[in-house]
Amino acid sequence: MATVLGANQYGKAENRVVRIVRDTPRHEIRDLNVSTSLRGEFTAAHATGDQSQVLPTDTQKNTAFAYAKLHGISSIEDYALALGRRLLKATPAATAAQVRVEEYAWDRLGQHAFSRRGGDVRTCVVTVGRDEDGTHVLSGLQDLVLLKSTDSEFKGFLKDEFTTLAETDDRILATSLIAKWRHTRTDVDWNASYADARECLLSTFATSYSRALQETLHLMGSAVLGGQQELAEIRFSAPNKHHFLVDFNGFDADGLTNDGEVFIAADRPYGLIEAQVSRDDAPPPGDAWLHVPGFV
Amino acid sequence: MATVLGANQYGKAENRVVRIVRDTPRHEIRDLNVSTSLRGEFTAAHATGDQSQVLPTDTQKNTAFAYAKLHGISSIEDYALALGRRLLKATPAATAAQVRVEEYAWDRLGQHAFSRRGGDVRTCVVTVGRDEDGTHVLSGLQDLVLLKSTDSEFKGFLKDEFTTLAETDDRILATSLIAKWRHTRTDVDWNASYADARECLLSTFATSYSRALQETLHLMGSAVLGGQQELAEIRFSAPNKHHFLVDFNGFDADGLTNDGEVFIAADRPYGLIEAQVSRDDAPPPGDAWLHVPGFV
Amino acid sequence: MATVLGANQYGKAENRVVRIVRDTPRHEIRDLNVSTSLRGEFTAAHATGDQSQVLPTDTQKNTAFAYAKLHGISSIEDYALALGRRLLKATPAATAAQVRVEEYAWDRLGQHAFSRRGGDVRTCVVTVGRDEDGTHVLSGLQDLVLLKSTDSEFKGFLKDEFTTLAETDDRILATSLIAKWRHTRTDVDWNASYADARECLLSTFATSYSRALQETLHLMGSAVLGGQQELAEIRFSAPNKHHFLVDFNGFDADGLTNDGEVFIAADRPYGLIEAQVSRDDAPPPGDAWLHVPGFV
Amino acid sequence: MATVLGANQYGKAENRVVRIVRDTPRHEIRDLNVSTSLRGEFTAAHATGDQSQVLPTDTQKNTAFAYAKLHGISSIEDYALALGRRLLKATPAATAAQVRVEEYAWDRLGQHAFSRRGGDVRTCVVTVGRDEDGTHVLSGLQDLVLLKSTDSEFKGFLKDEFTTLAETDDRILATSLIAKWRHTRTDVDWNASYADARECLLSTFATSYSRALQETLHLMGSAVLGGQQELAEIRFSAPNKHHFLVDFNGFDADGLTNDGEVFIAADRPYGLIEAQVSRDDAPPPGDAWLHVPGFV
Repeated sequence: MATVLGANQYGKAENRVVRIVRDTPRHEIRDLNVSTSLRGEFTAAHATGDQSQVLPTDTQKNTAFAYAKLHGISSIEDYALALGRRLLKATPAATAAQVRVEEYAWDRLGQHAFSRRGGDVRTCVVTVGRDEDGTHVLSGLQDLVLLKSTDSEFKGFLKDEFTTLAETDDRILATSLIAKWRHTRTDVDWNASYADARECLLSTFATSYSRALQETLHLMGSAVLGGQQELAEIRFSAPNKHHFLVDFNGFDADGLTNDGEVFIAADRPYGLIEAQVSRDDAPPPGDAWLHVPGFV
Repeated sequence: MATVLGANQYGKAENRVVRIVRDTPRHEIRDLNVSTSLRGEFTAAHATGDQSQVLPTDTQKNTAFAYAKLHGISSIEDYALALGRRLLKATPAATAAQVRVEEYAWDRLGQHAFSRRGGDVRTCVVTVGRDEDGTHVLSGLQDLVLLKSTDSEFKGFLKDEFTTLAETDDRILATSLIAKWRHTRTDVDWNASYADARECLLSTFATSYSRALQETLHLMGSAVLGGQQELAEIRFSAPNKHHFLVDFNGFDADGLTNDGEVFIAADRPYGLIEAQVSRDDAPPPGDAWLHVPGFV
Repeated sequence: MATVLGANQYGKAENRVVRIVRDTPRHEIRDLNVSTSLRGEFTAAHATGDQSQVLPTDTQKNTAFAYAKLHGISSIEDYALALGRRLLKATPAATAAQVRVEEYAWDRLGQHAFSRRGGDVRTCVVTVGRDEDGTHVLSGLQDLVLLKSTDSEFKGFLKDEFTTLAETDDRILATSLIAKWRHTRTDVDWNASYADARECLLSTFATSYSRALQETLHLMGSAVLGGQQELAEIRFSAPNKHHFLVDFNGFDADGLTNDGEVFIAADRPYGLIEAQVSRDDAPPPGDAWLHVPGFV
Repeated sequence: MATVLGANQYGKAENRVVRIVRDTPRHEIRDLNVSTSLRGEFTAAHATGDQSQVLPTDTQKNTAFAYAKLHGISSIEDYALALGRRLLKATPAATAAQVRVEEYAWDRLGQHAFSRRGGDVRTCVVTVGRDEDGTHVLSGLQDLVLLKSTDSEFKGFLKDEFTTLAETDDRILATSLIAKWRHTRTDVDWNASYADARECLLSTFATSYSRALQETLHLMGSAVLGGQQELAEIRFSAPNKHHFLVDFNGFDADGLTNDGEVFIAADRPYGLIEAQVSRDDAPPPGDAWLHVPGFV
């Protein structure tokens, strides 16, 4: 037998790029976490330690910072496309570059003072190949914590001898959503597209009745795809953040009832629902999701 | 020699209490992390394992949830006072109860749908003693991430043979603030007081020129105390979240400059500035800060 | 256009199963983090909220705990196979069940007292399908932090106009390794196989000269495959945990040199090297790596 | 009214100092997390931004790294004493320096290869004042996770109307221990002292019957003090890491019992037991515990 090198990639993860635009007294801030990787024909590096075709991860880091100035950050997708193209051009042995970005939002306090907003984080995963067919853009968000305090049920489920869960007509439904959606074009108004998709997710969650988290995700995904014709698909990873009704029955306190009012928020275990909704005429994804962490 | 039992306390930490108020179709949500502890004469429990004077931490947990309903949560301070008084009453051997609360804010999406806001967290530490003098309320916040992209300098500092830091007239100043302020009364409009203090912190940070984080904290503290006469003091723990200007000098790229535009946000090490600002006629703190984690 | 449901799975993540074997005064402990998921024909749940084919995640949790007793935990692979088969049998609509386990090791202090070992964590990902071809076992480990204080170089690499990294003949090489290897059989002595693979990884790392992390991973992977003929492949995700030599040149201290003696351990960014080594006659992986988080 | 500056301190937190001793082919590694702070008369810095008496935190960082070479790290206590004395000497306005260190242990794989051990972390907090009376050494450990699978009961406790906990003769007792003990001298064999104290903690935990975590901590503390006459006191912060017996009663499975065999390890809430054991003739602590995070 012999061993062969299989898939491989290398890069610099979690470059914390902060860009201040200060052309006027009213500054702007973009606050990113940027990870880059290169794939291709790097057998020599693995087999004999020959680094002659390897653009160092340190150089990838330098390029991420330089491009925050040279190209600018009108949107994370636009920045990631430019950065990925540059890395691919600089590395002849590479067949593709992947750039992942998370963006942290800030609220303005003044001309040049800001407070970090917290809450959900905007993301993208951009893959750039040697030809246009190999270029893919996923936009998305993570850490979007949503909760419905009613209009959520869970009943009529399959039972076996280990089933003890009671059916319920009214429960808290909560999740910390990760979503990524795939574009079919690269000439998109990325910021407008993102704002529309996020708004679709929020409004659908808020206005729909939920028979299960699966149904709610399906509705949310369909709404996002329905709103933007150029989107091919959307994928979700959604922990079911359980909120258990506290049982007051054992308490010796007159009139202490709990009609969906007091819950304990649990950490672990949690349900984990993952699903993909696609347009029925979506073009194939190619390598758009290759090596993307999490549900694919 | 002999050993003696010294200070001690016990309780239940991190009860995740979620309270839904659903008296009308427009629900309200309060989302808390509640920790309780009891202090007093518990030598028997330590010396011989005699639990007869020990109210179990499990009961403390149950009480925290029951009081979310029985007393309600008009503010975290009011809730913590009620809960502390109850625990003290239920435990004859205790001389004091301390209740710590963190509150996570939610934004409304609809009548009964919410998204978690993220960002800073409101906190309180309430100590209840056997008499009114032993009752103390600290209000505060944590995880308030602030940044100034200019109007911050650091120069004129003491130097020794290990000093290599360059002086600067213009840098990013950023911190993730923890602040706690001590009330001298318990008949306060807690929510209004909190809103005023938080606003003072933000506006002072935004509008002041900074010669060092120490000076900025001092201004912020003075502003909070100046706005509310019943406050005795405020204490800060403020990591200096360093943003280092990226050095483009080694790059072989024409015209690539960095005039305060591209920074790398560093994780560790970080400066850590801690300070207290007091009213000069403040009454003594008693046990208000006893066993409060962090800077005291 | 219409939207269609794509890939999906659901389950219960991070069940913290602790099993004490106490048949004799000398107790044994197994401490697991168990995640289960089911895949298959669950369109009705997503499209109309019909749960009649959905075995609740709560039941999956109950089964994970029940099987810790009914089947026992001779190894995490054996336990996961039994649990996956059970979940698949209980859910007619499912086509596959995946069970992921992390195991935390404990050191013995006495007959029934233990201290948690810390360090690396043993893992497995088991996929059970409706026929034997659909059953796959990945074994692995994570959080294995390794460091070489010499015998590591990095030089001869590709350079461009953003390259500033100096070449070096001697550096610290450190990583926090995640590795997973794929078995081709299910009648394996899982504990012996794991011990052998882990030992191969450690000894190869310790004894090899490193021209780059890529080369070292390749050697480690080849060693593991060389030691066990039934293994098909191994995959690595290896952050390059940078240790930067501290520059004492700016210090005004006579004779203060740094010949590879004092380093600062950096958090972010970090290099991230990911690679796969396969036997050249390995059978195809099927769904063994489907939806496995991280590098695939 | 006027506001006054109260207590304050500043420094550099979490310097990740890695020291390789390579005088022979058999290398040694010391891996530290070092935090320094200075206290004293720094009013000008707070009031007017005057930094002329402020040794920058960047210089404190540089000194921490330089002293890893100039002084060396025979033990973290010895290193911290030297570093604190140096910082105090370099800063005339300071009245005290505090140095906190955590040390991560590594296991040897070869002459110059290591794997990080994980598990508990050795710590110290050293305060250096202007005279010898102001110098204090606390040694300790954290993240020491201990578990007893029997010989632990909890019963006979105080009950009120919110008490629902059942009494038990047999439960799992588990904690993730933080302990710090105060020395009365500075001419101690720090490594031998630490090894003895840690062994006392482990053996007492392993061999004692527990009526409550309070009792067990008291025994452990007394054992440590009993073993080393120069120790004045020891303080513990001990989360009660609950392991709940899984209830199989609702399962429709013949003969499925749970006699202390299957537990769910819970995250939150957790009991938190904090206590101090002192020698009855211990000298007063002075500022030894000032601003030490956690239970004091």
